[in-house]
Amino acid sequence: MRTIEWKEDGVYIIDQTALPDEVNIIRCEEYERIAKAIERMEVRGAPAIGVAAAMGIALAAKGCTLASCEDLQNKLEDAYERLRKTRPTARNLFWALERMRRTWISASSSEPKELVKRIVSEAISIAEEDVAVCRAIGRNGAELIEDGDGVLTHCNAGALACVEHGTALGVVRSAAEEGKNFIVYATETRPLLQGARLTAFELKNEGIPFRLLTDNMVGYVMRQRLVNKIIVGADLITRYGDVVNKIGTYGIAALARHHGIPFYVAAPLSTIDLAKNIEDVIIEERSPTEVTCIRGIKIAPDGTKVINPAFDITPRELVSGIITEVGVVDPPYDLSLLFRQGGNGIDRVVS
Amino acid sequence: MRTIEWKEDGVYIIDQTALPDEVNIIRCEEYERIAKAIERMEVRGAPAIGVAAAMGIALAAKGCTLASCEDLQNKLEDAYERLRKTRPTARNLFWALERMRRTWISASSSEPKELVKRIVSEAISIAEEDVAVCRAIGRNGAELIEDGDGVLTHCNAGALACVEHGTALGVVRSAAEEGKNFIVYATETRPLLQGARLTAFELKNEGIPFRLLTDNMVGYVMRQRLVNKIIVGADLITRYGDVVNKIGTYGIAALARHHGIPFYVAAPLSTIDLAKNIEDVIIEERSPTEVTCIRGIKIAPDGTKVINPAFDITPRELVSGIITEVGVVDPPYDLSLLFRQGGNGIDRVVS
Repeated sequence: MRTIEWKEDGVYIIDQTALPDEVNIIRCEEYERIAKAIERMEVRGAPAIGVAAAMGIALAAKGCTLASCEDLQNKLEDAYERLRKTRPTARNLFWALERMRRTWISASSSEPKELVKRIVSEAISIAEEDVAVCRAIGRNGAELIEDGDGVLTHCNAGALACVEHGTALGVVRSAAEEGKNFIVYATETRPLLQGARLTAFELKNEGIPFRLLTDNMVGYVMRQRLVNKIIVGADLITRYGDVVNKIGTYGIAALARHHGIPFYVAAPLSTIDLAKNIEDVIIEERSPTEVTCIRGIKIAPDGTKVINPAFDITPRELVSGIITEVGVVDPPYDLSLLFRQGGNGIDRVVS
Repeated sequence: MRTIEWKEDGVYIIDQTALPDEVNIIRCEEYERIAKAIERMEVRGAPAIGVAAAMGIALAAKGCTLASCEDLQNKLEDAYERLRKTRPTARNLFWALERMRRTWISASSSEPKELVKRIVSEAISIAEEDVAVCRAIGRNGAELIEDGDGVLTHCNAGALACVEHGTALGVVRSAAEEGKNFIVYATETRPLLQGARLTAFELKNEGIPFRLLTDNMVGYVMRQRLVNKIIVGADLITRYGDVVNKIGTYGIAALARHHGIPFYVAAPLSTIDLAKNIEDVIIEERSPTEVTCIRGIKIAPDGTKVINPAFDITPRELVSGIITEVGVVDPPYDLSLLFRQGGNGIDRVVS
């Protein structure tokens, strides 16, 4: 199944906290449950969070039995505010929520029933577009992969981070579908082990050869020339190509530069925030227990203080290329060139 | 207590696999138990392994009820061969075993009882010298630490890696004893979490302020300027200053270079192997389950293939200085200058 699916009786989400031991499905009937799923990282990965939030708005609309369209809009505003506050960094969350909001504002003169229909339809469109976009990212990025490559990826930018196929792992999947022979090096990605739990799960299921490594083995595999390309996902990309992604990404990029290895970022245009500069980025600090415990087992003495930033920033000068659905963008980056202003004030992709 | 102690009824070792949850003491009555303790990493850290091996030889001698000195020497050779094979990388293991072997060869004309006494005495000397050497390393290295520093260390090069005080953490301890105010950043050090389990345990007990971080946060703390010095230990240093140490050290050194942060190695002269070049180093590959499981909990799908090198090599050009008991050595390194040939063919420290 897909990572997240809209069905008549609710939004179905694969619980990513239980993988790879158990494949549990969560059914969300209200937007509050979606908000909790994002906070608990039952659904994670920037594109998947965006789709989940859009579907949360759709659930809020669908559950609405209010008479007037104005009350419906109040409820949608409540859902919008709640979902906005779930996680602070991933761009796609805000992108999807803004897009949903524009939908209900632009259709505010419709009948409530019609408005609900349009909102649900927009959420489903966001999910379907994500599938198509990941496929396009995969095709575009696969051209960079050659037989014999060692491709290192970090965290999980796979099907589980999107609706299906994935961004960085979408590139890997597409290259494998094209019959290319290469090996993936997957970092385990502490603290929450998305690499060991999710990326390894996906690659195993696909039959793509891979090796799992601890995060501190990255320098070693580069120096041993086991790895000659890096592809990661992104949670936010600034207008000029600075990349916010899972903690550890920056260190990998700096090590890649030290070894002369190209470092690529694969992400949909919905991850780009043209209004953000590197100084504006808010890095989420998560619970200390994520560091002091692993899957419920305490690993450090009581009272140990930690740092636990969920993300870091890789400055544009370390990024060799950004793989998007419209092609691979080379530096120097001005990503505004990929967009044009639509008639409704919405940034549209240059086609 | 000390990490390892010689007593009348056996060798007492703190079981480092149980820390920090439990402080269990293992009593070893035979060299085979010492060999197992080294293999299981119940005792670990290059200097501590050396001391343990020396005490293993002493146990073999002490347990000997054979009549002639020649049979005693056969038993010592057996112990020597067994202990040599426990772990392949740490220099101090081979250094201590060679030193013990020279002791029994040079005293081969003694009465068995006298020979046993000399062997036991030599093992105790190695332990006592380790204490003094770590104190000297601490004093020498403490001069590099200033108020307000953020000092990053990797793995555990503390009291638990030696008899007491430690090498890299010996520097930290000495600087704290001198009243300097600084913060230690300790990497958790997957796969076996010596940073989270052992370094955090030591720093907490000493009351030295520290933060624990996952291994992939090293780039982040450097970029945030939280860290301005790196001090790590070593398992082997080549004649020209290449450093073999816990996996992840090389990546930290390369990131330190990228950020212009000095990277120091603290180690006794017994860690230096003048006969070894960088090409000769054997890197121990350990069990895959160390990566796929954490403290008994499976974290990756069944059948996941991993890499698990226990060490990596930091080339000399990334090493800002080597902190030894005879002083801080600056590059370019020719560490043979620290030694002179003694009358018995033994390398002696230049005093």
